[in-house]
Amino acid sequence: MTVREELLRIAKTARETSLKIANLSTDIKNKALLRMADALEKHSTHIKQANAKDIEKGREKKLSSAMIDRLTLTDRTIKNMADGLREVAGLPDPVGEVTRMWRRPNGLWVGRMRIPIGVIGIIYESRPNVTVDAGGLCLKSGNCVILRGGSEAINSNISIMEIMVDACRKEGVPEGAIQIVRTTDRSAVLELLSLEDFIDLIIPRGGEGLIRFVAENSRIPVIKHYKGVCHVFVDESADLDMAEEIAFNAKVQRPGVCNAMETLLVHRAVAEEFLQRMYRRYRDAGVEIRGCKETVSILKEVKGASEEDWSEEYLDLILSVKVVGDIDEAIHHISRYGSLHTEAIVTGDYRNAQRFIKEVNSSTVLVNASTRFSDGFQLGLGAEIGISTTKIHAFGPMGLEELTTQKFIVYGDGQIRE
Amino acid sequence: MTVREELLRIAKTARETSLKIANLSTDIKNKALLRMADALEKHSTHIKQANAKDIEKGREKKLSSAMIDRLTLTDRTIKNMADGLREVAGLPDPVGEVTRMWRRPNGLWVGRMRIPIGVIGIIYESRPNVTVDAGGLCLKSGNCVILRGGSEAINSNISIMEIMVDACRKEGVPEGAIQIVRTTDRSAVLELLSLEDFIDLIIPRGGEGLIRFVAENSRIPVIKHYKGVCHVFVDESADLDMAEEIAFNAKVQRPGVCNAMETLLVHRAVAEEFLQRMYRRYRDAGVEIRGCKETVSILKEVKGASEEDWSEEYLDLILSVKVVGDIDEAIHHISRYGSLHTEAIVTGDYRNAQRFIKEVNSSTVLVNASTRFSDGFQLGLGAEIGISTTKIHAFGPMGLEELTTQKFIVYGDGQIRE
Repeated sequence: MTVREELLRIAKTARETSLKIANLSTDIKNKALLRMADALEKHSTHIKQANAKDIEKGREKKLSSAMIDRLTLTDRTIKNMADGLREVAGLPDPVGEVTRMWRRPNGLWVGRMRIPIGVIGIIYESRPNVTVDAGGLCLKSGNCVILRGGSEAINSNISIMEIMVDACRKEGVPEGAIQIVRTTDRSAVLELLSLEDFIDLIIPRGGEGLIRFVAENSRIPVIKHYKGVCHVFVDESADLDMAEEIAFNAKVQRPGVCNAMETLLVHRAVAEEFLQRMYRRYRDAGVEIRGCKETVSILKEVKGASEEDWSEEYLDLILSVKVVGDIDEAIHHISRYGSLHTEAIVTGDYRNAQRFIKEVNSSTVLVNASTRFSDGFQLGLGAEIGISTTKIHAFGPMGLEELTTQKFIVYGDGQIRE
Repeated sequence: MTVREELLRIAKTARETSLKIANLSTDIKNKALLRMADALEKHSTHIKQANAKDIEKGREKKLSSAMIDRLTLTDRTIKNMADGLREVAGLPDPVGEVTRMWRRPNGLWVGRMRIPIGVIGIIYESRPNVTVDAGGLCLKSGNCVILRGGSEAINSNISIMEIMVDACRKEGVPEGAIQIVRTTDRSAVLELLSLEDFIDLIIPRGGEGLIRFVAENSRIPVIKHYKGVCHVFVDESADLDMAEEIAFNAKVQRPGVCNAMETLLVHRAVAEEFLQRMYRRYRDAGVEIRGCKETVSILKEVKGASEEDWSEEYLDLILSVKVVGDIDEAIHHISRYGSLHTEAIVTGDYRNAQRFIKEVNSSTVLVNASTRFSDGFQLGLGAEIGISTTKIHAFGPMGLEELTTQKFIVYGDGQIRE
């Protein structure tokens, strides 16, 4: 079977199964999720054996220790995956929800009902937990899913997949709800992206290179999850104790993730005091600061920022700092250099809080809270399949609802158009 | 200036203006829409002169009379365009609407606020009224719009555009809110579709060829509006008088549009009686029937349908008719041959009505009403920029809300992540 034939078979199976999965009862979906969770834990030795093969190959291929780390499954990570499925089972089923209903003058009742998107392709890199997370979220939201993981994790992914598929079968979920692409041939991604008659949506999860490749080559709609160049703006009227905690948390609590702050903007009126305070805390935490001219004149030890720094996603203990004259300059800087991901203002001023909420059109905009809350779990979605930085379909953290669309339903009693 | 340079200049202007347009007050937008409406009527002679040039060229190029008809502007069509803008001015502004707000255990208030998509490109064919409709809807929803109409209507479109831009300027709308691509060079569409850094969404409006070309060549997300192969299923328990009116209305009232019925499905138990009744009405209205074997055995004069007929969008007084054994066979036929556009059931049976609503995942699903209601105005959206047949972002008729997306807004009082 050629790569194209394998993918076509998978995609056709998904399309044919998708209406059945869309109409599956919540009860069956939840039972399958819970059975998957139990089976993952029960067969953890089997999964770890498959994972060991991937790790061995990874070492031969001299993957970085960070990549080996992302690849490695332990009893703890397997338990986390299982618990994740149990949480998804506990969430409300979005399918069939009627979000609104209204009456027309001619007596028609018109409503909007959530339905699954249909067939979703997930293209991801080395983390095997995506296999479980994406599989579980797509099943719960009534979608068929086609998973294409990185070649480094192929044995782990196949082992996990077989356990999930077996659990589905035992609970009466039709075959084809969750499928994996077994070939590690690189052409498989391109083939997948060409099957627009069978796949409704592609979600790439991974580095910027992968996402760009998918976006440029797909004939299927793509929800992108690009970089997060997130800002915190400390306004003149900010409570500086609060600002200190937020600016510290946003940078240091987990610097390697997309909702960590990369640029701190500080109002000129409080720059001297605030930057002196922050400098000590950042220095003790090992944060390297790259400052604008004014920052450098306040903090003599600090290195100057280059033009490139303002649009850099460091994903590391590095921070660019800029002093601004007012909220307008802060908003202008964010709109020029930001990536539409997450921005926060720390302020005591009512008008500036409301202006920031209204005028900054990033996917998450916060007042007096850390950028690290831009996350499906933290915002209360109960789950997260990614954070969209495209404005089409979903913007920001995506949960189960964002894996659905809405159809119009109409109840009439014989209405015709005049 | 090359074609690429012209498009790049337009797209950059739109991107730079988009945040200003997003934050424009409802009042200014409405005043601009009303001024545009008045100006179109005031300058109707000027518009008709430009339009006459297009028509003359069209005749030289031997365009079909249907195309000339779509191209032609009269006092009445200009008044209709102006009235359309006045209606849009009267609709609620979707921008800034907070659709939901909830509280997290840590005290954060989290909400979702509607914001404009940003920059929208509309690619359309010969109808100059799209220039007005799309321009008005995009302005009201706070988006910048780049219009690329068909070369046959270029003089009409430029004339309309200049009037609209002038009205915007007089009401204080920043330059660049509504722009038109002036070059008629065919490469302009491809260039436009490559500017993914400046344009957020492409909406093609026109025939299937145009839409397919755009979808295949765009690096920007596209909301497609493919064909409508719409079905009416007359169930065993249908009130046959009601079924007759609906089946007649869905086919005959305006056969050339996408929400007209193309295939009639009839339950075997009522097929003989119902088809005999319908046959006379259809014949008198000039409808040609293409039937399945059972239909042909009931209606001897009727021609047999080929396999291709079941997926054909006739857009004409032609109808394919199939007798089915039950609702399952009807749903199966729709899912196999339908285009996810609009389907209706006529039934007196509660369970079948609910099953049809639940199990048919087309963009509009109706019980006991004509498919012709699948329309933004008829369903109560107040306006319509198109009918999406892709499930991403919007599915079915698209109004002002579908030209927005939602950001997360978060009000805190110092929360950080542990």
